Amino acid sequence: MRDVYIIGAGTTKFGELWDSSLRELASEAGLKALMDAGIYAEDIDALYGANTSGGQFVDQEQVAALIADYSGISELNIPSIRIEAGSASGGAALLQAFLAVKSGQYETVAVGGVEKMTDVPSEVANEIIGGSLDAEWETFFGATEASLAAMVAKRHEYDTGVKREDYAQFPVIAHKHGSMNETSHFRNVIKIEDVLKAPFVSEPLTVFDTAPISDGASALIISADKKKIKNAEHPLRIKSSTAANDFLSLHDRKSIDRFGAVRKSTKSALELAGLEVGKVDVFEIHDSYSIAGLIQMEEILGKEAIRMTRDGEFYYNSSHPVNVSGGLKAHGNPLGASGVYQAVEAVLQLRGNAGTRQVKNAENIMIHNMGGLGTTSVTSIIGVD
Amino acid sequence: MRDVYIIGAGTTKFGELWDSSLRELASEAGLKALMDAGIYAEDIDALYGANTSGGQFVDQEQVAALIADYSGISELNIPSIRIEAGSASGGAALLQAFLAVKSGQYETVAVGGVEKMTDVPSEVANEIIGGSLDAEWETFFGATEASLAAMVAKRHEYDTGVKREDYAQFPVIAHKHGSMNETSHFRNVIKIEDVLKAPFVSEPLTVFDTAPISDGASALIISADKKKIKNAEHPLRIKSSTAANDFLSLHDRKSIDRFGAVRKSTKSALELAGLEVGKVDVFEIHDSYSIAGLIQMEEILGKEAIRMTRDGEFYYNSSHPVNVSGGLKAHGNPLGASGVYQAVEAVLQLRGNAGTRQVKNAENIMIHNMGGLGTTSVTSIIGVD
Repeated sequence: MRDVYIIGAGTTKFGELWDSSLRELASEAGLKALMDAGIYAEDIDALYGANTSGGQFVDQEQVAALIADYSGISELNIPSIRIEAGSASGGAALLQAFLAVKSGQYETVAVGGVEKMTDVPSEVANEIIGGSLDAEWETFFGATEASLAAMVAKRHEYDTGVKREDYAQFPVIAHKHGSMNETSHFRNVIKIEDVLKAPFVSEPLTVFDTAPISDGASALIISADKKKIKNAEHPLRIKSSTAANDFLSLHDRKSIDRFGAVRKSTKSALELAGLEVGKVDVFEIHDSYSIAGLIQMEEILGKEAIRMTRDGEFYYNSSHPVNVSGGLKAHGNPLGASGVYQAVEAVLQLRGNAGTRQVKNAENIMIHNMGGLGTTSVTSIIGVD
Repeated sequence: MRDVYIIGAGTTKFGELWDSSLRELASEAGLKALMDAGIYAEDIDALYGANTSGGQFVDQEQVAALIADYSGISELNIPSIRIEAGSASGGAALLQAFLAVKSGQYETVAVGGVEKMTDVPSEVANEIIGGSLDAEWETFFGATEASLAAMVAKRHEYDTGVKREDYAQFPVIAHKHGSMNETSHFRNVIKIEDVLKAPFVSEPLTVFDTAPISDGASALIISADKKKIKNAEHPLRIKSSTAANDFLSLHDRKSIDRFGAVRKSTKSALELAGLEVGKVDVFEIHDSYSIAGLIQMEEILGKEAIRMTRDGEFYYNSSHPVNVSGGLKAHGNPLGASGVYQAVEAVLQLRGNAGTRQVKNAENIMIHNMGGLGTTSVTSIIGVD
């Protein structure tokens, strides 16, 4: 099994980018990643494109082919495949690219994630996001992802005694970190009271408990080519990448407020990387909803995570930094791009290029991308060798 | 590099299957493949689901998670990822599964392709199919895939002197073969005159030049596990699997009636398999349109393919059998499933289980799945060792 490195990373700003189309965003991120890797388009053997709902948002399927087209690599006849796993599409594309390079068939592969969500009204966007639920047993009966997340939250309060104020910490932390990230969708700092007093999306969750609807794109270049790795300024090793799934519908699960797939994929990623969880310095997780963020950290660190949330241990300058990028909540959540950006953030942190939000001496970063409410879980561990 | 085998295959009938939902079709095919491999769900390490436009056809994204759910494997937390590459999604899922097993991270993987197209009116289905074109530069201006295929046909007549009657042979051959396949959407035999006199879809192409709108699902189990391969009744080796892409928009290509990606991926598949094209006994290609079928065979066999079409050499009992399954035209074209079914057909032929349409002594079969009009091209070669 050969080693696979991230040799380049790039991203657009995330936000309501009305001036840019899906194709423009994707190619901007892709070209930045290529330049960062110091290579040319003809050095790429394949392209994996992450996109959740291009067909519904902008009438565009075959999105990877489109990305290749606008990045100027179609002439090279490079294979371009789209990966979709709900909002875990970005993480899943990184996983597929990683496996493709591991297999030996390809040496250097581009991973691009993109979503253009603001071309439709937000109620339509929310319906499209519902496409990642079970269409026949959840959405058809009126459930939205936010309403299911709200049920999970109530149940979790009942099961564990966790307080509303506890998981409301997640957006507060995210906005603090996001304020220090220049590509963030939101750069304002918020307080617990702001979260609690904001309008409800689905009680008890307010708009501040939920990640926004964003446009954006991020890209990576990964390689096993010794020469390219040597030439790269700061190559970082993908120590593991893996995934797990749970039942699509909440009602099929034994417990709606436990994420079995998250537990399995994060554990498996640690095992494959040969690391204990204590060796992970930063966690970039999928805070599509505040409560989802908390449950993920519980699956990774155990029940202790509730206390750590209360004690402020998840800030960038504390013991267990979580979502130092600003997370999906503040940095933004253009579905297919979000999981790829998590890896971009890992690269920035591990290179020491994360500016004022830099975590000191980080060597291993776990990135966890989730599709639906714990349905698809993709985890990678990126580190300094 | 370890060897990867197909150890199980299964399919539903293709057609207008109004009694079956997407999830039912997918799980039927998946369970048949598992039974055929003689293994249980818990023997699977990952699932790759091919689906082109579930979000638009049936409001369902995260389709792979849904398939896992209804196949009863969600409890096992197996990673389930959807692959999309327009109508090449099936071939692309097989490619990703192949690479995933090659990488060593997974031993045994399920590949499922499914599409449920008849829940929407056919004009809506055609719009959705247009999603695989360039949304901003083709579909927005009113182009449909059929109208672009018609332009390709006219240009090809002009460039090569090929006659309307020549490429009209493709559906005739397909229906002949499809009539002998019990899972076919259409089992009637047709004549050249039927093709020429049928209503136009886009002149010169008639309804008989174009593959139908179908429902259906197909599945495969692939493995590198020596014990499972040994236990399988008739394992078949995937000698190679690879892909290539061309510009998404026809207007960006140097020539609209040459498929550069097809040329590259089929050539590359032969090289990776260590075979000359003369060693390929059967070709299952992507006859979404008659003209596309002819151009693909030209890219694979050279200009000679035009003469061979005229001389009837593509029949199952002739020198170069093409689409012995009935192809997309007669066996049906449920987008995400079509490419997976091509591999199922290869399995049936190589096992000698193809009934009256059996090709004698077939040892190597090339399957070629295409997204859009030559945009994404995925080729695998499956053979007896």
